Amino acid sequence: MPILGQNQYGKAENRVVKITRDGATHHIKDLNVSVSLSGDMDEVHYSGSNAHVLPTDTTKNTVYAFAKEHGIESAEQFGIHLARHFVTSQEPIRTARIRVEEYGWERIEHTREGAHSFVRTGQETRVAQITYDGSAWEVVSGLKDLTVMNSTDSEFWGYVKDKYTTLPEAYDRILATEVSGRWRFNWTDDTQPAPDWEASYAQVKKHLLQAFAETYSLSLQQTLYQMGSRIIEHRDEIDEVRFSLPNKHHFLVDLEPFGLKNDNEVYFAADRPYGLIEATVLRDGVEPRIPVDLSNL
Amino acid sequence: MPILGQNQYGKAENRVVKITRDGATHHIKDLNVSVSLSGDMDEVHYSGSNAHVLPTDTTKNTVYAFAKEHGIESAEQFGIHLARHFVTSQEPIRTARIRVEEYGWERIEHTREGAHSFVRTGQETRVAQITYDGSAWEVVSGLKDLTVMNSTDSEFWGYVKDKYTTLPEAYDRILATEVSGRWRFNWTDDTQPAPDWEASYAQVKKHLLQAFAETYSLSLQQTLYQMGSRIIEHRDEIDEVRFSLPNKHHFLVDLEPFGLKNDNEVYFAADRPYGLIEATVLRDGVEPRIPVDLSNL
Amino acid sequence: MPILGQNQYGKAENRVVKITRDGATHHIKDLNVSVSLSGDMDEVHYSGSNAHVLPTDTTKNTVYAFAKEHGIESAEQFGIHLARHFVTSQEPIRTARIRVEEYGWERIEHTREGAHSFVRTGQETRVAQITYDGSAWEVVSGLKDLTVMNSTDSEFWGYVKDKYTTLPEAYDRILATEVSGRWRFNWTDDTQPAPDWEASYAQVKKHLLQAFAETYSLSLQQTLYQMGSRIIEHRDEIDEVRFSLPNKHHFLVDLEPFGLKNDNEVYFAADRPYGLIEATVLRDGVEPRIPVDLSNL
Amino acid sequence: MPILGQNQYGKAENRVVKITRDGATHHIKDLNVSVSLSGDMDEVHYSGSNAHVLPTDTTKNTVYAFAKEHGIESAEQFGIHLARHFVTSQEPIRTARIRVEEYGWERIEHTREGAHSFVRTGQETRVAQITYDGSAWEVVSGLKDLTVMNSTDSEFWGYVKDKYTTLPEAYDRILATEVSGRWRFNWTDDTQPAPDWEASYAQVKKHLLQAFAETYSLSLQQTLYQMGSRIIEHRDEIDEVRFSLPNKHHFLVDLEPFGLKNDNEVYFAADRPYGLIEATVLRDGVEPRIPVDLSNL
Repeated sequence: MPILGQNQYGKAENRVVKITRDGATHHIKDLNVSVSLSGDMDEVHYSGSNAHVLPTDTTKNTVYAFAKEHGIESAEQFGIHLARHFVTSQEPIRTARIRVEEYGWERIEHTREGAHSFVRTGQETRVAQITYDGSAWEVVSGLKDLTVMNSTDSEFWGYVKDKYTTLPEAYDRILATEVSGRWRFNWTDDTQPAPDWEASYAQVKKHLLQAFAETYSLSLQQTLYQMGSRIIEHRDEIDEVRFSLPNKHHFLVDLEPFGLKNDNEVYFAADRPYGLIEATVLRDGVEPRIPVDLSNL
Repeated sequence: MPILGQNQYGKAENRVVKITRDGATHHIKDLNVSVSLSGDMDEVHYSGSNAHVLPTDTTKNTVYAFAKEHGIESAEQFGIHLARHFVTSQEPIRTARIRVEEYGWERIEHTREGAHSFVRTGQETRVAQITYDGSAWEVVSGLKDLTVMNSTDSEFWGYVKDKYTTLPEAYDRILATEVSGRWRFNWTDDTQPAPDWEASYAQVKKHLLQAFAETYSLSLQQTLYQMGSRIIEHRDEIDEVRFSLPNKHHFLVDLEPFGLKNDNEVYFAADRPYGLIEATVLRDGVEPRIPVDLSNL
Repeated sequence: MPILGQNQYGKAENRVVKITRDGATHHIKDLNVSVSLSGDMDEVHYSGSNAHVLPTDTTKNTVYAFAKEHGIESAEQFGIHLARHFVTSQEPIRTARIRVEEYGWERIEHTREGAHSFVRTGQETRVAQITYDGSAWEVVSGLKDLTVMNSTDSEFWGYVKDKYTTLPEAYDRILATEVSGRWRFNWTDDTQPAPDWEASYAQVKKHLLQAFAETYSLSLQQTLYQMGSRIIEHRDEIDEVRFSLPNKHHFLVDLEPFGLKNDNEVYFAADRPYGLIEATVLRDGVEPRIPVDLSNL
Repeated sequence: MPILGQNQYGKAENRVVKITRDGATHHIKDLNVSVSLSGDMDEVHYSGSNAHVLPTDTTKNTVYAFAKEHGIESAEQFGIHLARHFVTSQEPIRTARIRVEEYGWERIEHTREGAHSFVRTGQETRVAQITYDGSAWEVVSGLKDLTVMNSTDSEFWGYVKDKYTTLPEAYDRILATEVSGRWRFNWTDDTQPAPDWEASYAQVKKHLLQAFAETYSLSLQQTLYQMGSRIIEHRDEIDEVRFSLPNKHHFLVDLEPFGLKNDNEVYFAADRPYGLIEATVLRDGVEPRIPVDLSNL
């Protein structure tokens, strides 16, 4: 008989908006929360018995109830509340993994009294993944869809040439990418004080943007390593970083047929195909735990 | 024999990035340009003769060549150069319509010398449509994907109730929408000075955000009218505004089954279905010209 | 004071699935229904009074109730029931426009008794728009996302060449497009028998596919005209057709640098930019009514 | 100094269309190929030296050249050619992973001579991943976006109830999901004959559809296990299957407020949130190798 292997279940993409009112000044948290539970679940697969199954509808209800009961201080803290609850309250559930996307909002400037009008920043989506197995915590934070460009200070030459190589070497090119990054915290024991999740996120974003801007780049791999390295060096709470960086090619348009010189001015922004550069950067001595493929983390 | 009606053709979605170098300080314009031409094109439909057809590939080349020859001062000005060229240089082409999407970039703060590192703002996409028939110009500017929210100061009651009505009246609700707006300039004659397209855009965006924030709303229609009205009143160069405003419903979650009171704190952000409110606001005495359905304008 | 122009409102994207049980044999209709109403709605814009406003939530309820009360014989017939209801039951509502997307399902072959297992066909999305103003009907049906290709029998040459033209002429190329089409019925008076909507759709789809396949093409415009013309000639119930045909370019890859001959075998399928060919084909003597831009019709 | 961990690079999403001409009868293969290489790549990250880097542009060229040199018999066979080439031709490259998406086409029926007109089937996207480290092969095939529904023969009851549970038990519900599945072949040694990739795919798709249709379901987990189990039992060449099955909820609409009875006829098809059920099914004695999260495999 075929054997059941790893399995997990839960309610994905619970969209929760939490308004906190401080008089006429409101604060907003806007999350997309996905719950994934695993444990003693063989029977529901083999016979269809739901005796160990907390319905996914219940996990959805729990997300909304916890937004009221615990508030949403940060995506990470909210995920910790949820993961602890599922693992400690239901015996068959051994591991809970909470994934969160967070959308940023900023205030609209206006002349009316009060502060309860917002506009989506629209820049990166912040993400977090919180995993708990009843003893140790793993928190991975990150972001996606943060598009950056250096319009110079990038070269690409000295590479291997085989019979299929036609690319000319480049000594001044655009380097652009859409950053997808994840970083793992070394906090695992909840008897120890947790990091300041909000401050940490802001600092990591600042460092990765600065490292991108400040690296004179001979390859996107070099830029990636600098971005990861900068985070490890400046943020003691983080042990591992992984980036997935599509090389968003900007091709210099050949204007010579029209009698025009294109002195690194006019580019075609291509969609597909694109280079894809992915790597992990680790604190020395640390074992990697972030999966190789980020796309759904 | 079936008759040919309105027809148009061109190259859509030419992605052009223009870097302007001022020493180590670079400036960027990032556009998606679509060209649509019409005129004396019966034969290519009836017999396949391309004798009147300037290839769409040529219109693409023209976009890139013009980025070099004329620069990109603004989406609108760039569209004007292109439209004039197609109508005046090819006899069979009687009308040109140029559509532009523009993506915003801001500088990355860093410590390196020079200023050539950018991050996409990611907020709204700016749009423009320039139409020219050889005598008069029509310029419609706009934006899309600008998501806004008031977390209070919105009510909805006093509406018609029929046998299919179950909605309870609301005296304090979230009002959120993703603004899609278009506004038409009264400039049509290029012997007259053109508006300052960049300054106009910035002011219109400011006015529509402020009107959204400052309107105590009894209906999304009322908010829409205030947004359009504010623009008409403050911007002499604009005669007509149209908005398409999806009502991004945020439903108060019923927490009573869990013994919790939800005092306008925890909301479910719904995707579909959504209310859709669309209307035109006009300067008195002006004929409307913006189409009823905005989605591809 | 700024003036209110054309306005409309309603609930968009109501996803309704209707199962009809004929013993153990089930039938399925899967629709996405958008309601848009207009009429005497000035006050809700100017003052926020909802006295004339049937809530969009009610229009949603009506969609679901009508699926039970009237069944869903076809997208068009269902839209007719809804449009008539809104215009005739609420005095302030003068015009109703119902848009429908329909997703196709086919049966899964299996050995179990009964016939209630389905798989989405995944091919084109069928669309319909029904408009009623209390006296005359307008029904426009159509489809989108139907991708077709001829791997030969397409040429492109004899076109205009200006200083920006670099395209070489082609005497054997791939012609591929993603068909978006709309066709208008001449049925307007509901005292006359309505067309057989389901049979008409199947025939129109067959004709447009065959015309695409059977036309030796000197331009995509010629193919478009043949597709529209075939429909007008074969389907008496239809007076007007409009197509929006992106030219999905397949570029022959240059394999000479690798010592290989590419005899129309290996192509790069490009995304952007793309040619965009749009035109209306009419029965002789008929006034066009389908808007120039199809994308949200 | 921060340490470099796992890293990989390559060109993603090379869109290749291969036409094979058999007189006037043409055959088509339409693939999206992503190349990912890893090996001795420390220096490019640490110093930017590209001495070991075969450019991603070259990997793109190789995809197109191989489509000519080897043809495209199947996605899997094509990936095998590519992976072998990269690992055996460049010393620093130790592992190659080729991912392929394949889009289906069927012939348009017509009266013209020849057979070179096609329409995209639009149903599932077929996927394959081929990995080679110079000694052993791993081939994982699969599909995504295959949407299926049983309109009856599904129940859900007998589950755990905690203080956040409000869901009523269901004894006759719709069960619908969008199948994402991957299956791993036990072929690893290319001195052994490879499976018939095309025949295997067709059979696996048939089995999973039939298992979905023929399982009277007490939980989506039970259905998932039946689908995987059926494949393992019928296909000797496959040792492991993993499915990710979103529960596409169809909620029975409450029509009682309108005096109507909804006897499992009218449903609201919801988007978010959704249940998400994921599991592996293995041949007894086999070690699992398919990653827990499928979304980008």
